[in-house]
Order: sequence, then structure tokens, then C-alpha cells
Amino acid sequence: VTSPRRIRIGLLGAGVVGQGILELLRDHAGTIAERLGAPIEVRHVVARDPNRVRNDLVPKALLSFDPRVILDDPEVDVVVEVVGGLEPAGTFLRSAIEGGRQVVTANKALLAERGHELITLAEAKRVDLYFEAAVAGGIPIIRVLREALASDRIVALRGIVNGTSNYVLSRMRDAGLAFPDALREAQELGFAEADPTLDVSGGDAAHKLAILATLAYGAQVHLDDVTVEGIDEVTATDVVLARRFGFAIKPLAVARKLASGALDLRVHPALVEETSVLANISGALNAVYVEGAMVGPCLLSGLGAGALPTAMSVVSDIVDVGRNLLTGARGRVPSRAFRGESLEPIQVRDPAEHRTRFYLRIQSQDRPGLLGKIAGVLGAFDVSIEQLVQEGRGGAEDAPITVVMLTHEAPEGAIRGVLRELAFLPQIVGRPKAIRIEEG
Amino acid sequence: VTSPRRIRIGLLGAGVVGQGILELLRDHAGTIAERLGAPIEVRHVVARDPNRVRNDLVPKALLSFDPRVILDDPEVDVVVEVVGGLEPAGTFLRSAIEGGRQVVTANKALLAERGHELITLAEAKRVDLYFEAAVAGGIPIIRVLREALASDRIVALRGIVNGTSNYVLSRMRDAGLAFPDALREAQELGFAEADPTLDVSGGDAAHKLAILATLAYGAQVHLDDVTVEGIDEVTATDVVLARRFGFAIKPLAVARKLASGALDLRVHPALVEETSVLANISGALNAVYVEGAMVGPCLLSGLGAGALPTAMSVVSDIVDVGRNLLTGARGRVPSRAFRGESLEPIQVRDPAEHRTRFYLRIQSQDRPGLLGKIAGVLGAFDVSIEQLVQEGRGGAEDAPITVVMLTHEAPEGAIRGVLRELAFLPQIVGRPKAIRIEEG
Repeated sequence: VTSPRRIRIGLLGAGVVGQGILELLRDHAGTIAERLGAPIEVRHVVARDPNRVRNDLVPKALLSFDPRVILDDPEVDVVVEVVGGLEPAGTFLRSAIEGGRQVVTANKALLAERGHELITLAEAKRVDLYFEAAVAGGIPIIRVLREALASDRIVALRGIVNGTSNYVLSRMRDAGLAFPDALREAQELGFAEADPTLDVSGGDAAHKLAILATLAYGAQVHLDDVTVEGIDEVTATDVVLARRFGFAIKPLAVARKLASGALDLRVHPALVEETSVLANISGALNAVYVEGAMVGPCLLSGLGAGALPTAMSVVSDIVDVGRNLLTGARGRVPSRAFRGESLEPIQVRDPAEHRTRFYLRIQSQDRPGLLGKIAGVLGAFDVSIEQLVQEGRGGAEDAPITVVMLTHEAPEGAIRGVLRELAFLPQIVGRPKAIRIEEG
Repeated sequence: VTSPRRIRIGLLGAGVVGQGILELLRDHAGTIAERLGAPIEVRHVVARDPNRVRNDLVPKALLSFDPRVILDDPEVDVVVEVVGGLEPAGTFLRSAIEGGRQVVTANKALLAERGHELITLAEAKRVDLYFEAAVAGGIPIIRVLREALASDRIVALRGIVNGTSNYVLSRMRDAGLAFPDALREAQELGFAEADPTLDVSGGDAAHKLAILATLAYGAQVHLDDVTVEGIDEVTATDVVLARRFGFAIKPLAVARKLASGALDLRVHPALVEETSVLANISGALNAVYVEGAMVGPCLLSGLGAGALPTAMSVVSDIVDVGRNLLTGARGRVPSRAFRGESLEPIQVRDPAEHRTRFYLRIQSQDRPGLLGKIAGVLGAFDVSIEQLVQEGRGGAEDAPITVVMLTHEAPEGAIRGVLRELAFLPQIVGRPKAIRIEEG
């Protein structure tokens, strides 16, 4: 393989991230050329609306609205995709890999849904497929899993990988806001999308967790292997009462390999001890806690989104695949390695068997014998109470009271039974809510 | 270059880290072979006392006490050095590089003192020189600087990179121990060396900072460019009073590029706000905060020492240089890039010009007019007081009192003048002490 004297890229997508990439390539051109060993040349920028791309970032002649100009140009070494979504990005990247191009993408949905297929294809074609920016923006968690921890066995991953959810819960806690107000604030500040459903429902975090677990466990993790619960049912009362018990409520994504070999894969709000590091990752910050058998606990934290951190991760990936091109080392990090650790199909632990402590919140009319009835339901499922608080007694007549309990460790299946049965008690107002407590 | 079908290593050093490496190579052999794309074969283990190497880790036939067996064996692909110290490690690694071997080392003292020479030689010979384990054990800060942030410009690095110092200050804070007691505890637990001088004097952290700053700023940073102050003059009183002002005292290492282009390079105990992330990195944990122009703040935290984390980093480096061997990509990450960012010689900012807030502690006989005299000295150097606390008044007659002040921002040179002049006041007992306050 002859070393090309420059690394020529075709960029699909010229939104905020795409323009951030062009800005970075322009402003840090000298440093990047030195660190890569060759300059990076932008050959094409494909945008839905080329007229909206800033003039100072790219010459008009390089702009197009047709992705085929990238695929049709044999001089493009690296195809960079930052449009997102399954299509047309998926077909585009398939074609790029089939054509033997190096690929850098920030597309988490595509990787979570069809990552296995793309990785397999990239490996067959001996093409590098890099995607640091797809998970947790500026935090180099992909590189750490693929390279820094290549000799370790991952025991568990615990992270805050959705900045919007973290911002919302942080503001509910620090400023006493209600969920809708905190979410509106996040939208006004530009953290949350116009439609924040994917963020607050846990869907976005599930995408990221599927990618991380695939790398960490060499397993083909699918989105529907992940138990997902959003933060949208967490109330201001939950945040206040959790704090009284010494906890913060955080939007967690967890992947663990159990002794049985099965994977525990979950995305949900959770109570974590106030003094823990994850409790103190606030605002729109992301963090991932990796626990390795040898390395022990290792935390990475930083901005999980935003044009500049994401652009930085994309360009560092371009530098990395560019180094592989210059040295003729395409396919240097075998992707197979991250599917093949175990040849057995992955086993996902039945979520009902997950044992942990729970926070339970019940709203009820204040009737005599209420606590006895609640205790009866818990007892029937063998769930025992560690602490209990009643709020709102002595208020206006018939105003509902709130009963909050921390349980001892219990299987999730039993807690679901408890919630189902509690809903039948005539005094209960609204739906009882359980939030998992995450230890360590 | 023909791909060897296995990566053959020669290991110099069979102490706790060396034996950890052998254990890891044995226990994770399958995973490592898959992730690397080839098995790793240990060809030689050189130990000062081969009889002390555990039988189950390495066949007797591979053991030797003579480093030349590694250099003389043309079949050794990767030379791994974990003995530490300048010599004979330095001469050994020079010979290995001259012989065209790939090199992995955990030797921070050698890299801090002669890293520039070794990197230059490695580049001339197109050999990889990897040293993730040399700084902060299991934390992949070297890889993050060389690869993940390759497209960014580093604004500042702030870290806790000496676990012993962090343990000692944490115990002084959490358990109210005095410095010597906390240090003894660290020694008993095996965190501190039998001779902990290099740890508590800041020397060890200065080694690490010199390496990190070299990578971050592409500059040839020497040990004596770093302003170094140990934690050994921090007293239990300082820890208690700092806390009262809302601060924790932490052993910091700081590298910043100033607007003037000069580097600010410091290792010293510092007051950091109690609610900051670094304040909450406790015990023997290490952490490094990288601030990139694009990526913003990015934190990495984990175990900075210990046989297993260090061994893990060394073996991940072997995997990485092994991948370069298998794909014929030796010298893939140009080391030059990390010296050449600026061709101007590095400028180190005169430490006397460092402006920050200070914590000042003065012990004195309780005489009328004392505060007036202290205020006079501060005023003469244009240092103004933000807060002041007097401790110990009304104690036994003639028992000294402690006066503690937080100053407004002032240049370090002025504070040195203050300390010098205060020592001339007849009431003063012992040496007045200043501790820097680190913001942000």
C-alpha cells in the first residue's frame, strides 16, 4: 500500500456537528497535520441544504446535496457521516464500506440497530469503522474499551449517558423544579431536542448502552435486550424524599456480566448514594464508570453532547483511521475481537430476577389502616421495609398523603407484583411508583 | 514486513508488576489473543533474583538474571521494562530501540529525565515506545492525550497523580490524623514505599507532570521546569481550617498554557472547593482533569498504582504495539507530533508571577497589636485579606495562637515576601505557611 500524502475526506452532514468538524479542521489544521503525519483535505461536503452552510467554512465548489458524489469519487479515503438516523445513512455507509473506504460515524441509532452488520462487513472488507462520537460525545469511552482496556475483562459499566435526562434531574434537585419545567429549561438552553421523547424515555441511552455492551462483552447486544424506563415519571417529591434518605436520583445505564454468564442490561432512573461520584456528575455532563477485573473502577466524565466535543471526537477518529491509512494498517484493531469473546449466544438475565433495594412511592387517601394494608401487600410478596416516611398528613381534609418506603433487597418481579396489587387498594390515588436503588 | 504469527516478548523485571503481567497474560490469554489477533508468547523473564519468581507463572527455563538474553534473542518482538530507575533500565531500553525492538515501559523516572532522547531515538528507528503505565497506573491518560484528543488543543491539565499523597491528605481530613500517622498508615497498607520521600515531596508527581506536559504541549518539558512543593508541611490544623472555609486540601499537579504562550507547571498541595470533583477523589485514587479547547473539561479517574492496574496498562500497550507489528504499522503514532507543536523553545512562566488566592497560616504568641503588624506586612506587599480566623485564644497563658487568612488574588512573589517578612516579627512561632488555592 502506498501512503497517500494527504487524507481526503467526504463529509455527509453539515448541521452543527458537520460545521463544527469543518471549523476544527480549519482552526487546528497545522497541529492535526503534525499529529497525523499528513494534512486532511475536505473533498466534498454533502448537505441537505447547501445554501445554509457557512461560506467561510467550505468553498462553494465542494458543496453538494447528493451523497453519491462522495461514493463516486475514488479519491475519497475517509467517509465521515454525521447526519444520523437509520436511512439514508445506513445504505450510504454500507456502500462506502463495500467500496473499501475508511468510515467514521457519529450515528448511535444506526450502530445500535445495525452495528453488528456494519462491523462484520467492515471486517470482511478490512476497513476501519470508527465511532467514538456515537456514545457520550467528547468522552473517549469507545477507545478506552477497544484499546486501553484490551487486556482486561469488564465486570460492569455504569453510566450517565443522556445529558438531557441528567440536566433535568439535576435541576429538579438543585432548583426544586418540576419535571416539565426542568425539561422546558433544557430545551430553551439547547440541551434537549425539540422532541425530547427519545431522551427522557431512555431510548437514546439504550442505544448507547447497546453499543457499549457490544464492545465490552464481545456480544451482539440488541436494543430489545435492554430493560428501559424513562425519567418522565420521576416527580419533584421523589427527588426531595430521595435526598432525605441520602440519595440522588440519576439517569443510569448499566451493563454487568453476572456470575451465570448472563448480561444484566438496564436503562432507568436510580437512587445513588449522595456521596458517590455518579451522584455528583451534574448538569448536562455525562460519565461512564468502567469496572475491570484488573484495573478496578475507572471513571470517565465530560460533555456528552454539543457540536464542539462531538466534532473533536469525529476528527480524532479521522486522525486515527488516517494513521492506519498512512501506515497501511487498515483493520488494525480487529472488530471481531469485540464480538467473539464468547461464541455462545448472549444470554440476557430475566429482568424480573434483578435483585436490588427499591424506593416505593404511594399516594393515597389518608384512611385508618392504610399502612397495615400496604404492609400486607408487601408481605405477600416477601418484600420487607427498611424505612418509611409519610408526607402530607394533617393537610386539607381528603388531600392525599404520600407514603414512601425504602425496601430491603427484593427481586424486581416481586416489586412489580406489589405495584400491581397496590393499585387495587381503594384508597390509592394514581399509580404507585418504584425506583431502583443502585449500589456501589 | 511479514506478520509474525505470535507476539514474542522479553520481560525485564519480575517484581509485583512483572508477576502481575505474567498472571494477566496467563489468565486472559484467550481474550488477549482474540483482541490482538495473535497470541502473546513470553520468551524471557529477567529478574534480579530468579528464585523469587513464582513457579506457576513462568517455566524455569525462561528465567534469567541477565538482561542481555533479551537483547541477544532476535526473536523478541517487544521488550517490556518494569524494573524502574534510570540505570540499568535506560541503557537497556536504548539498546532495545537501537536493535529495532518495540518497547513498552512503566518507568516514569526514566521518561521524565530522558524521555525526549528515547522518543527521538524511537522515531529515528521507527519503533513504537509506549508507556501508559508510567503515569497514573490504570488511567489511560497517555492514550487519551495521544489519540482521543489528537485533534484538540489542551488548555490545562489538573490532576491528582500521587496516590500516597492523596491517601495521606484524605485520612488527615476524614479521620483527623496528623501527617506522620496518616503516612504510617499508608505505609502499613502498602500504598507508600518504605521510603516515601519521593511521594510526599512531590518528586514523583513532578515526574508524571513532566511526561504529561510533554505530550499535551508538544514541548520538551524538563523536571526542573516544574515548581515543586511537597505535602509534608500540611498540618492537621490546615486541613480542619481549610474545611471550615469550604475547601479540601489536595495534592495537585497542574500544567497550563498561558495566553503568553508560556507554560505554568506546578506540583503542590492546594485548597480546592469542597464541591469540586477533584475534592471528592479520595483515598489512593488518582484523577486527571484535561481541559481541551473543543472538548471542554474531561475527567479520568481510577487507581493510580498497584500491581494489577499497572500490569493491565502494560499488557494493553503490548496489545497495541503488537497490533502495529501484525499490520506492519510500527511508528504509527508519530511521536514527533508531541514535540513539534511549537518549534520555539518552551517558556516556563516565572513562578513568582503566578497569581492566585492563598491560604496563610501563622503561629504566634498572643500579643497586643499582633494583627496590626501582620496586616502591615501584607499591606507592604499589596496583599489583601479576604477572610481571617484566629484560633486558640483564651488557652493556656503564652500558648501560641494560630492566625489563618484567605487572601485575595496575589502574585506568588508577593506572598513569598510576606512569609519572609513575617518571620522577622518577634511574636511569630515557627515558620508561617502559605498554601495555594486552585480555582475551577
